[in-house]
Amino acid sequence: MKRIQTLREQFATHRIDGLLVASMSSIRYLSGFASDEGGVALLLIGGNREYLITDYRFGEQAREECSHVQVVVRDRARQTLGDLVRELAVECNIQQLGYEREHFPHGRWLDLAAEMEALVLKPVRGLVELQRRIKDNEELGYMRRAADIGDRALDHLLGMLRPGMTEREAAVELEYALKRAGSESLAFPTIFTSGPRTSRPHGMPSERPLRRGDLITADFGAVISGYRSDMTRSFVLGKANPKQREIYQLVRAAQALGVESVRAGIPYSQPADTVSRFLADSPYADYAGEGLGHALGLDTHEQPYLAPGCDELLQENHVVTVEPGIYVPGWGGVRIEDDVRVTGSSTELLTRFTRELIEI
Amino acid sequence: MKRIQTLREQFATHRIDGLLVASMSSIRYLSGFASDEGGVALLLIGGNREYLITDYRFGEQAREECSHVQVVVRDRARQTLGDLVRELAVECNIQQLGYEREHFPHGRWLDLAAEMEALVLKPVRGLVELQRRIKDNEELGYMRRAADIGDRALDHLLGMLRPGMTEREAAVELEYALKRAGSESLAFPTIFTSGPRTSRPHGMPSERPLRRGDLITADFGAVISGYRSDMTRSFVLGKANPKQREIYQLVRAAQALGVESVRAGIPYSQPADTVSRFLADSPYADYAGEGLGHALGLDTHEQPYLAPGCDELLQENHVVTVEPGIYVPGWGGVRIEDDVRVTGSSTELLTRFTRELIEI
Repeated sequence: MKRIQTLREQFATHRIDGLLVASMSSIRYLSGFASDEGGVALLLIGGNREYLITDYRFGEQAREECSHVQVVVRDRARQTLGDLVRELAVECNIQQLGYEREHFPHGRWLDLAAEMEALVLKPVRGLVELQRRIKDNEELGYMRRAADIGDRALDHLLGMLRPGMTEREAAVELEYALKRAGSESLAFPTIFTSGPRTSRPHGMPSERPLRRGDLITADFGAVISGYRSDMTRSFVLGKANPKQREIYQLVRAAQALGVESVRAGIPYSQPADTVSRFLADSPYADYAGEGLGHALGLDTHEQPYLAPGCDELLQENHVVTVEPGIYVPGWGGVRIEDDVRVTGSSTELLTRFTRELIEI
Repeated sequence: MKRIQTLREQFATHRIDGLLVASMSSIRYLSGFASDEGGVALLLIGGNREYLITDYRFGEQAREECSHVQVVVRDRARQTLGDLVRELAVECNIQQLGYEREHFPHGRWLDLAAEMEALVLKPVRGLVELQRRIKDNEELGYMRRAADIGDRALDHLLGMLRPGMTEREAAVELEYALKRAGSESLAFPTIFTSGPRTSRPHGMPSERPLRRGDLITADFGAVISGYRSDMTRSFVLGKANPKQREIYQLVRAAQALGVESVRAGIPYSQPADTVSRFLADSPYADYAGEGLGHALGLDTHEQPYLAPGCDELLQENHVVTVEPGIYVPGWGGVRIEDDVRVTGSSTELLTRFTRELIEI
């Protein structure tokens, strides 16, 4: 309820007297209702009341999880969503109803808008997300646990990898290890590439068998109470050759520089620019990935990004990924990614797995 | 390319001369580009050209997968998406650009719309989805394989279940079995409930330990080449008590009736109405779930639904789920779900797992 109260204090600035929240992560953050299925609930926040709107499939769960929010189970055969939202908003004396522009499918917005009558719908951007940026101790506890699970799952996987295993088989074992260690689900579809396929920053695992001498990249994450970890390691199945070693050490230095550059009070762009300048002086300047990282929490990709032009300020208890990479088409690539909490004077690394070059 | 050509033939009816496709499933269907990540590509289809728009992370993959479509890798730091879409659309002489209203986040649409200049954006609904309803032989092959993997994974799980295992542990084993059997990912977040929690139609697995005598419901699916299976079985850990047996047999009869009612040429509502009338005569009428099922394919929930009021017609090679359920809050519930292909004269069950009451 404190979170909802804090959110309400922003209403006047946005000239709204109510907010319709559609992001499942923000609904969870504000009400406690947790579903991995998109679009199955809306949260309507008025000046002194709030309603979680869902359907019969989630009624029992919602009433259990939302101790402070009234649950409204819509009979989808009898009432449209727009009709129900309008009725509840009128009950709360809402006249200017904000809605999360990034989280409504346009078609759903069109349907809602057609039924609002005198109610004015106003698009707002990133209102709850702004509040979510600063993680409290409970949230940080979940994120540390998620990061720790990632570390352990990777450790387990490295003990299992053998030439002949396919990328897909390896990814399946990694995902199984994540879940056995307590991850509620996967933070995002696991990226797992080997050999020349490591040049694809977001390559999905394929049927390619791992070969001795392959570079391998795994990018994956765990989830605890909805909070995500997101880590990447590249490593070699066997002994690294000189070029693999050279590129790995370059990315390792860039990543260390990126982590060191993160601190409270500077713009999000600054660490990205620092790393970008560093890589621009290297022989692989043309192969550097875009951007350096992103904020992390209930969603894997949260705003802001550590990227050129992003002038928002890093603050204490923001959590960001730092993940520079070099991707050479036809040859391969390397990425190293950690989750970094901004502290008062420095940073805390949530992911702790070694960043030294691993040769299995 | 044939699929894109078929789609173009619909342009005149919708008074558009180009279409911007945002659904990742429709992009895959039309272009071959396959990503599990939402929002990482758009497909722009003009009168005689088409472009897959993505970013550097997916360029290499897209060029490999989209043999017939030109891949445009946007430099996100230098060009907005709206600017690029407008430029390409002008190149194709598009004046009336349709876009998928259900698949654009409203905010993204607002940003695009602001940069369209003379180009007119026109919302369209379900255009590609309509074409996707009828599955060809290749698609049906994938769906049969996905269904078969689901059958086998459940069989494997039933051999492992023991009192004391938690719902979460059981779900993790089921998911592992799905993936080991070849499923590319999970069709949707696995529903796994036990004991009184089975009254939640979409309950996520919890830390509740399974107990002897529990009803258990598992609803899950496999994915092959993007095509999904979606099946549910309820069963008893131990010997069923009379009420469990009574409700199971009621749902089993309703489900058999539902499957028998599906055939080409009738409205989607008809099987739902038939089952609904059947359950209305039972002592558990008040506890029946809403609707009977949904179409299935590259997405788990495709339109149309087997639900009251849906007057669209079932046709040969549509694939739908048939999944009636009884959910008694505080006691528990039962659901049985199969994937059903409409044939010329009857139906083919893609999921083949027994529908007899299982007592483990």
